[in-house]
Amino acid sequence: MSVVIAAIKETMPHEHRVAIDPDVTKRLIKSNMEVLIETGAGTESYYSDEAYEAAGAKVVDRQTAIKQANVVAVVQNPGSETLSQLKSGQVIIGLLNPLVASDQMQQLAKQNVSVLSFELLPRTISRAQTMDVLSSQSSVAGYKAALMASNIYPKYFPMMITAAGTVKPAKVLVLGTGVAGLQAIGTAKRLGAVVSGYDVRPASRGEVESLGGTFLTSSVGNGAGAGGYARELTAEEQQAQQAELAQFIAQNDIVITTAQVPGHKPPLLVTQKSVQAAKPGAVFIDLAASDLGGNVAGSKPFETVTTDGQVMIVGAGDLASRVPNSASQLFAKNIQAVVNYIVKEDAITLDLSDDVLKELVATHDGEIINPRLRKTLNLEPLPEPTPKEEPSDTKEEN
Amino acid sequence: MSVVIAAIKETMPHEHRVAIDPDVTKRLIKSNMEVLIETGAGTESYYSDEAYEAAGAKVVDRQTAIKQANVVAVVQNPGSETLSQLKSGQVIIGLLNPLVASDQMQQLAKQNVSVLSFELLPRTISRAQTMDVLSSQSSVAGYKAALMASNIYPKYFPMMITAAGTVKPAKVLVLGTGVAGLQAIGTAKRLGAVVSGYDVRPASRGEVESLGGTFLTSSVGNGAGAGGYARELTAEEQQAQQAELAQFIAQNDIVITTAQVPGHKPPLLVTQKSVQAAKPGAVFIDLAASDLGGNVAGSKPFETVTTDGQVMIVGAGDLASRVPNSASQLFAKNIQAVVNYIVKEDAITLDLSDDVLKELVATHDGEIINPRLRKTLNLEPLPEPTPKEEPSDTKEEN
Repeated sequence: MSVVIAAIKETMPHEHRVAIDPDVTKRLIKSNMEVLIETGAGTESYYSDEAYEAAGAKVVDRQTAIKQANVVAVVQNPGSETLSQLKSGQVIIGLLNPLVASDQMQQLAKQNVSVLSFELLPRTISRAQTMDVLSSQSSVAGYKAALMASNIYPKYFPMMITAAGTVKPAKVLVLGTGVAGLQAIGTAKRLGAVVSGYDVRPASRGEVESLGGTFLTSSVGNGAGAGGYARELTAEEQQAQQAELAQFIAQNDIVITTAQVPGHKPPLLVTQKSVQAAKPGAVFIDLAASDLGGNVAGSKPFETVTTDGQVMIVGAGDLASRVPNSASQLFAKNIQAVVNYIVKEDAITLDLSDDVLKELVATHDGEIINPRLRKTLNLEPLPEPTPKEEPSDTKEEN
Repeated sequence: MSVVIAAIKETMPHEHRVAIDPDVTKRLIKSNMEVLIETGAGTESYYSDEAYEAAGAKVVDRQTAIKQANVVAVVQNPGSETLSQLKSGQVIIGLLNPLVASDQMQQLAKQNVSVLSFELLPRTISRAQTMDVLSSQSSVAGYKAALMASNIYPKYFPMMITAAGTVKPAKVLVLGTGVAGLQAIGTAKRLGAVVSGYDVRPASRGEVESLGGTFLTSSVGNGAGAGGYARELTAEEQQAQQAELAQFIAQNDIVITTAQVPGHKPPLLVTQKSVQAAKPGAVFIDLAASDLGGNVAGSKPFETVTTDGQVMIVGAGDLASRVPNSASQLFAKNIQAVVNYIVKEDAITLDLSDDVLKELVATHDGEIINPRLRKTLNLEPLPEPTPKEEPSDTKEEN
């Protein structure tokens, strides 16, 4: 019997993506799986039910999709009501927010549901790269950040030489040069802006410069942390950094901020004072904007705030979802990579001695598996299973 | 005594530009003029009253600006109430829409007001290039058209190669390759799209190809008309053109239309059938959208319409005004060029034997001057004044 994969319609507000697109539908069916799509699941990302049917999926109602699936694929956590319908032996894959929704994870373990959550992926292992939703979606977000900035900014991005005179190019500063930041730098550069990128990790210099940007770094000290992420700075270091950044910010027209520290409140990089000092028409795009706060003083999630001084602050924590078709296409490929990794000979196998799966899996067989999640829930570490031989290829990533 | 130039706040809805910016203020003052700016005139284009004052302007109320000015500079026609306040000997410069608002022009002639209107500029004379508002503003509009399209389109513009797979680039078709069309082609190309440009004038090939676009032209016959504009096609030719275009449109994701025939209803280039055949997520940007109609079936001025088939149609007749700061900067430089042309030794001189002025001037000394406007009003041609020797430099432009 074939393994059945289902994608259901997203329920979170501002979420326009879908976990599986028609192209991946076709590929999964080719690998002898069956695909169920909830009616209208792809509408907001511009994939019609007809397109899924043409790719070989069955378009069904939500209950049928959830009931008949071996694997339910989602973008975001579908909420407790949906999760409570999952049965023993079923698998759910997506961005489930397990470290915050840890109660739900315990409940799912009790239901004997296997949860695979992309936030837990060990991103530095090369084999995990094709599954890296955080990377694929950050890339979309960075692209969109530069586009939005150029579209909101009341002046030209490129230098323009006209019969009547010359217009100066826009100056764009990107704070944080991970995947999103680099993509923002590349896109702003394409549009003809003068771009610089700031990061506390001096190792980012090469990437920024290869995109034609000027690299700015911190005199506060090396901020590289575990897993290629920037580490969280001390309060003193953060203040010194804000002061230093204020000078860089004042020299630019557009500031795109991308600094997130996993599981923590985002650092405040642009102070109220910097916002007030900015010229009319200046634009701040805050990719870290969330209910916990953001990188820019005064940013609000999902909103564009215009200050009295005519400065625009875009709360842009959801930018991948604002390029929903391409973002879903890449998300679906990440889902496909996970499915191919766990489906062998028409059956699902979760080998918990595997370096990728022992972190990616939040719950399995009634247990909490992921070590970070166990720690969050104050559970003892699991006894280490004998690991299979692994390639030791790791890379810097964030 | 200095000549006094004033800019007043625009009153048309959706108009965010201003006719004079702080930079041109400074330049006019350097040429021994005085500049008055109505309070808040620059706000919507992100020029503050303080910026004008710092540049040497006096910021005054509307009545004072209108009363004390020798020259009133506007972007659009300020309406009859304002026009009725102008006094004998005053000059007004802007986009006054004289061929449509011909009654107002007669009234202004009666008031003995001199009207200089950019729509009447003989654009093929080289000396007129620095005054060419239609060109500078079309350039901004074309840039903005590509940006808007990229921002509304739910997919990537550039090809993206990621760990999880490759995303194809967007295909952009630009209909009409005048100033706006070429700028749209250049900007879409910068963003990494695959771009083609269509024009009935075969001579446009070189420009399109130099920007990296594929040139498409018509088999309907050469459509080059007077002054470098496309001529109006016959009904039969137009139908043949629509059929031909339907095929090109079907192969693209984004269509930007820029076809305007001065003083006439814009030609319908994208039929209802083409809109219905377009894929979900397709975007049409109609730069000709106006109350008279547009290039795209179903476009509405100032609105974005989404069809049942998830196709977006942007009524975008006002795109220059949506990059208000840079558009005003260029507009102001065009105003400055006209002012420098007519102000000699602290006095305004309108030499009607001058090739540029005998067309640019709509009314002067109680008379309707511009020949096209005289024709519209069924007036006899004026006796030809003895022309001064003129450089015969002309160029193609639109």
